[in-house]
This record gives sequence, structure tokens and C-alpha cells, in this order.
Amino acid sequence: MFVYADHAATAPLRPEALNAMMPFLTEQYGNASSIYGLALNAKRALELARQDVAAALGADRSEIYFTGGGTESDNIAIKGALAALEKKGGHVITSPVEHHAVINTLRSLEKAGKCELTVVPADKHGLVSPADIKAALRPGTVLITVIAANNEIGTIQPIDEIGAAARERGVLFHTDAVQAAGHIPLNLRNVDMLSLSAHKFGGPKGVGALYLRKGVKIPPLTEGGGHERGLRSGTENVAGIVGLAKALALASENLEADSKRVARVSGIVKDGLSRIPYAHLTGHPDLRLPGTVSFVFEAVEGESLVLGLDAKGVAASSGSACSHGSLEPSHVLLAVGLSHEVAHGSLRLSFGYENTPEEAEYVVKAVTETVAARRAMSPLWDEAKNAPTERFWRS
Amino acid sequence: MFVYADHAATAPLRPEALNAMMPFLTEQYGNASSIYGLALNAKRALELARQDVAAALGADRSEIYFTGGGTESDNIAIKGALAALEKKGGHVITSPVEHHAVINTLRSLEKAGKCELTVVPADKHGLVSPADIKAALRPGTVLITVIAANNEIGTIQPIDEIGAAARERGVLFHTDAVQAAGHIPLNLRNVDMLSLSAHKFGGPKGVGALYLRKGVKIPPLTEGGGHERGLRSGTENVAGIVGLAKALALASENLEADSKRVARVSGIVKDGLSRIPYAHLTGHPDLRLPGTVSFVFEAVEGESLVLGLDAKGVAASSGSACSHGSLEPSHVLLAVGLSHEVAHGSLRLSFGYENTPEEAEYVVKAVTETVAARRAMSPLWDEAKNAPTERFWRS
Repeated sequence: MFVYADHAATAPLRPEALNAMMPFLTEQYGNASSIYGLALNAKRALELARQDVAAALGADRSEIYFTGGGTESDNIAIKGALAALEKKGGHVITSPVEHHAVINTLRSLEKAGKCELTVVPADKHGLVSPADIKAALRPGTVLITVIAANNEIGTIQPIDEIGAAARERGVLFHTDAVQAAGHIPLNLRNVDMLSLSAHKFGGPKGVGALYLRKGVKIPPLTEGGGHERGLRSGTENVAGIVGLAKALALASENLEADSKRVARVSGIVKDGLSRIPYAHLTGHPDLRLPGTVSFVFEAVEGESLVLGLDAKGVAASSGSACSHGSLEPSHVLLAVGLSHEVAHGSLRLSFGYENTPEEAEYVVKAVTETVAARRAMSPLWDEAKNAPTERFWRS
Repeated sequence: MFVYADHAATAPLRPEALNAMMPFLTEQYGNASSIYGLALNAKRALELARQDVAAALGADRSEIYFTGGGTESDNIAIKGALAALEKKGGHVITSPVEHHAVINTLRSLEKAGKCELTVVPADKHGLVSPADIKAALRPGTVLITVIAANNEIGTIQPIDEIGAAARERGVLFHTDAVQAAGHIPLNLRNVDMLSLSAHKFGGPKGVGALYLRKGVKIPPLTEGGGHERGLRSGTENVAGIVGLAKALALASENLEADSKRVARVSGIVKDGLSRIPYAHLTGHPDLRLPGTVSFVFEAVEGESLVLGLDAKGVAASSGSACSHGSLEPSHVLLAVGLSHEVAHGSLRLSFGYENTPEEAEYVVKAVTETVAARRAMSPLWDEAKNAPTERFWRS
């Protein structure tokens, strides 16, 4: 059996999205910025896609900009906001559970002296408190950026409340909704900028979008021919954009039904893995993405667990796909208070609408066996068994 | 008859490139940064693509970085070089016949006080002289950027000599080879950074590459998970990258044969359009892209000509696809000395390997008829007929 349980890394391209893309990969090859008939077909498809994305987000189509992906959207939003507001002070508030696209961008701006950064704490479930955000606000604060739902532990943040706090003080609020869009309902009422990525909800890789509330003006990161109303120059990736829109429309239409289906699969896995000794669910028990199940297993090395699962036909992840090759444990797991040691034993299983309860049962069996096999070879395991769990958490 | 004569705007996706992409748009959907089998297939495809692109360019695979397109490659190269070398002075030398992705980026950096810019002249054929580049060099010069072949008039620049002048003085040399790559032989001997875009040689839209000579270190424009060895974060667009590599490999393998085929088509069109009165070939008579035929027709408005040709089934362009909607005449045509008036009457026809001599004959007929019809309605036409051509060129 092969079970794909790494949807948070990337989801399979939805067949309907591929079908929608195919004309633009074949006969409809026009450049959307040209003016003859063939090109106008591309232009029309591009604008219909913008309309569909806007509808899925409850936004106006003038507020949607297509980009090369979620990371690029985050970079445009953050760097653009800071550049636009540099005279008003460069204080930024963020959380300790951001994706690398946000935190590494902010750290690099901070290092270059282009912003001052306040990272508010997260609780042991990875939750950020709007009160902490409010307390961090100061006269020079120009931007708050908090992830809508975390990519490693799945915790969903109260972005509506955080956005309200920002709005009240006239501070821009950006959210990285790369894991959230198409997976949970999003209310943009208090959001000024929102990043999303097509391949996380069944669209193609290499394309994303940025929602920019009407009236928010930021300079571009890439300059050139002035595409996307000057915010993102470069010939439009028509096929990719059409695929993004189709996938988001489908994900949005089926959101409720798919969430239930996915939650059933996740529930089986969560319950099953909770029965493994010295296993701890990471992230919030309830406020979490329906498809994401994340655990740490004491005395197990996460990457070795992932490779063991691969041998059993289960595709999973230890932390995010974007940090492999790094020996540092996940900043997210450290932020929720795990010790370095335990954070190394993390496993993320993330499910999609096509996973079945049978697959969930198989995953439980595969993880249980692999954890046991790894522990049998681990010198840490005897220590773990004989020590109180608390010793594995940072004091 | 439908004739696609706008390959410089975008080329149809090569069927072989689409075939190579299809597995990565369907069953091989793994994230190339994950570590299980499915992901490793993607990773392997990505690295084979890098190898193929390097081979086509005569580079080492460690020198190839994949990006979201030509515009992004230009922005990474220019902004990165200036950021890396800001302490050595920020003087940049460029030409007046650059793509908007280069010139608008430089203008914006100049406006922000991040560089001083010297734009050397071009001659009436759009050619830049290496002697002028040398003369513009000064102690604070950190970067020379000159387009390999122009997108509007097709003139091919002496990038090997310009690069040599840069090398001699320890100055970085970047070339926008978006129109050149896959169309003319490129020698990277004296090139430090080179931008290319897949969709200009039969790859998909939304993906490009940057060649960075070994030892050239520049900071990234988009930060995040550290993909592409830290230069361009964001989940790799595996299908797009595979398509880019396949298209470039094919274009390179067939370069000589295709150039001859395309030159025959272009030759027919060039000869035919030269017979139209008050028509002038723009760009260099010989040192030009084999597929690009560019003219100005006195007393004709270029966009109206393009629309007239569209009605006859010919897809063409007036200037670049990236500047439509602008009322300003092309900066390239002004740089070669055309008056505003005449520059408005420009037509670019750009051919690909799939165009036929029959199509070329049809294009000649269609343009000849359309120009005559437009002139018959133009009040400028009587003036033009009765005035020496010289009056239409800037003095």
C-alpha cells in the first residue's frame, strides 16, 4: 500500500485543475499582455482566474495579484510594506511559529537594520495571544504578520482578532495563509495582506497569489514590464494561474465536506498514535488544520522515522519540507517548549481529501511498528522509559 | 490561414517539453525538498534538468539556479550584485536597448539612491560599442549589464567583448539572454551572470534560470526555506523546470538547422516588407536574431497595424508585449534615433522553427495590404509621401 501523508509539503495536482490548464499548455499559448485574439484568450482566462480567486476569498478581483508562489507572496508583502512605510518606523510584530518565508525574511531585514522585530510568545499548543500582540504594539509599529495556520503543527491562529487589533491602531496586518487557504474558512475582514500557494490545495507548483486590500500600496520586489498592475512584473504564467484558480474554487466549494472526510482520517491516526508510549501530539488539540497530525516520539530520530515509513510506503515528513538537510531542530517545536532532544523526534502526517480510513489504519500500524523498531535500536530509549516525561521538555 | 509571428513575446510550448512535464503534473507530484521516494524522483528530475541546462550553456550545473522567469532572473542578478558590492561603489553601466526588466530595475535603484547609472549610446542599428563601455568604466563601477539580443529589434550585442572589458577591470558582467538563449550560440566565457526564460524557447511560462559563474556570490531577493542553495526560496516548480530543460536541450541541439529554417522565413518577410514604400528595417541588417523581423512604417500606427493583421490571422506585435497599453513609444526605437512619430509605426514579426515559407509569403501580403489600407485613412500619409524620409528621423 502507498499512502501519501504529506499534503502540507505539497498536494497532488487536482485532475480538474490539470484539465483546466491543458488548453494553455497547448493551443492557447498566447502572451496575456499581447493584443491579438490568441493573446486575448489568455488575458480573459487570467482575469476569470482572478475573479474566481477573489470569490473564493470573499475579496474583490482588484485585490488579487498572482505571484510565483507562497514564499514570493510573503516576501512581496513584508518587504513591500516595510519599504512603503519606512518613514513611519520599522517595527514589526510576528510570532515564533512562522514559516521560514516569513521569519527568515524578517530576520534578514532586521540584520540589515531595516526593521526592529518583536516576536511574541506562543503557548505550548503553538497559539499566539491577541493580547500579547496588542501589548507589543508601539508608536513605530508598521506591520504585524502572523501565520494563519502553522505548517508543522497545524495550529490555527486567531487572525481575525489579531487583525482587529492591528486595524484599531492603523497597523498593516499580513497573514501567511499558505496552509490555511482552501483548507479552513478564512475571513479577510481584518486582513490587509494574505499569501497563498497553489500547490498546497491541489494547484500546480510555481504559482501563488497575494491578496492586497484595496488602498494598500506597496512597491514591487521584481520590476520590469509592469505586469500585475506593476506589483509583479514578468510574463503571466497563464496555465499555472488557471490551475491555481480551479483548485482553489474546488477546494472552497467542497471545504465543508472535505474537512469532515479529512478529519475522520486524521482522527483515526491521532487516536492510534496517541496509544504509542511516550508519544505527544504537538499543536493545539482542537484549533488545528483538519488534515494535519503532528507528534513527537521520545527517543526516536524524526528523519530516520520518515525513511522507515517510506520503506513501508508511507510518505510523511519530520518538520517542514523546507528545512530538510538542516541539523537544527524546528524553530516551531522549540517555540512550543519542546527540548532539542524531543524536537528531533517529530513526525508530521498531513492528509488530503483523497485519503481513506483504510489508509489511516495502515499509517497507524506503520508508524507504531517503525517507532518500536527505531526505539529497539536506540540507546536513548532506556533513558526515556525510566525518566519522567517532563525531563524532555524545556524547563 | 493563421500565422503565429510573435515568438519573441512567447513561443508555443514544445510538445516534447509538455510530455516531459506530464509525469510531474500527475503521479510524480512529490516535493523535491522532501526525503521519501516520491520526493526523490522529483529531486532527481530537478537535478537532471539542472545538468541539461548547464550542458546547453556550457556551464557547470552548480552555476544554474532556477527562478520564476526572465524578469525575476534579471532582478535577482542586478539587485543582488548591487547589494553584494554596495561598499565598492554603486556605479552601473548599461545600454539604452535593455528590456524593461533591466532598465526599470536600474532606474528604480537609481531613484532610491542605490546606484549611479551610465547608459552608453547605441548606434542606429541598436548596437552598443565595447569601446563606449570601456570609456564609461570608473573606479566605482561594480556592474555592467547589456542585453544579449534585443527583444524589439533583434540586434545581437558583442557580449563576449563587453564581458572581456568587464573582466579586465574586475567588474561583474550580466546579460539578459532571454531572447538569445536557445536561438543563437552563446559563449559564457566572459559572462558572470546570465538570465533566461523558458517560454521564449518553447518551455512553459512561469519559469526561468539564472547562470551565476562559480565564485559570484549574491544575496537572494526572496528568502525562506533556502531552496536553490539559498538564492531563490520557494518549493521548486518541478514540472516547469523539467519543461525548461527539455525545451532548451531541444533548441540547442537543433539550433543550427532551426536557425537556417527560421532565417529563410524571416528573409522572405524582410525582402517582401522592404518593398513597401516608406518602410524601414529597424535593428542591425546582419547582427540580428534569425527569427526577428522589425520595421517601422511611416504614417502608420503600430497597434492599429497589429489589430489589422489579427483580423487577417497574423499574430504580431508592435514593440514588446510588455509595454502594451503605454502611449509612450518604445525606448529602444527612440534609442536608435527614430522620431516619436515614426517609432509609433513599428511592427515586430518574430518567427519560430514551425513557421513555413508559405506562411512568410502570406505575412508579406497581409502586412502590405494592411499598411496600404491604414495609410489610405491616414492624414499623415500625404505628408509622408511629400517629405524626405529624413524628416522622420530625429536630428
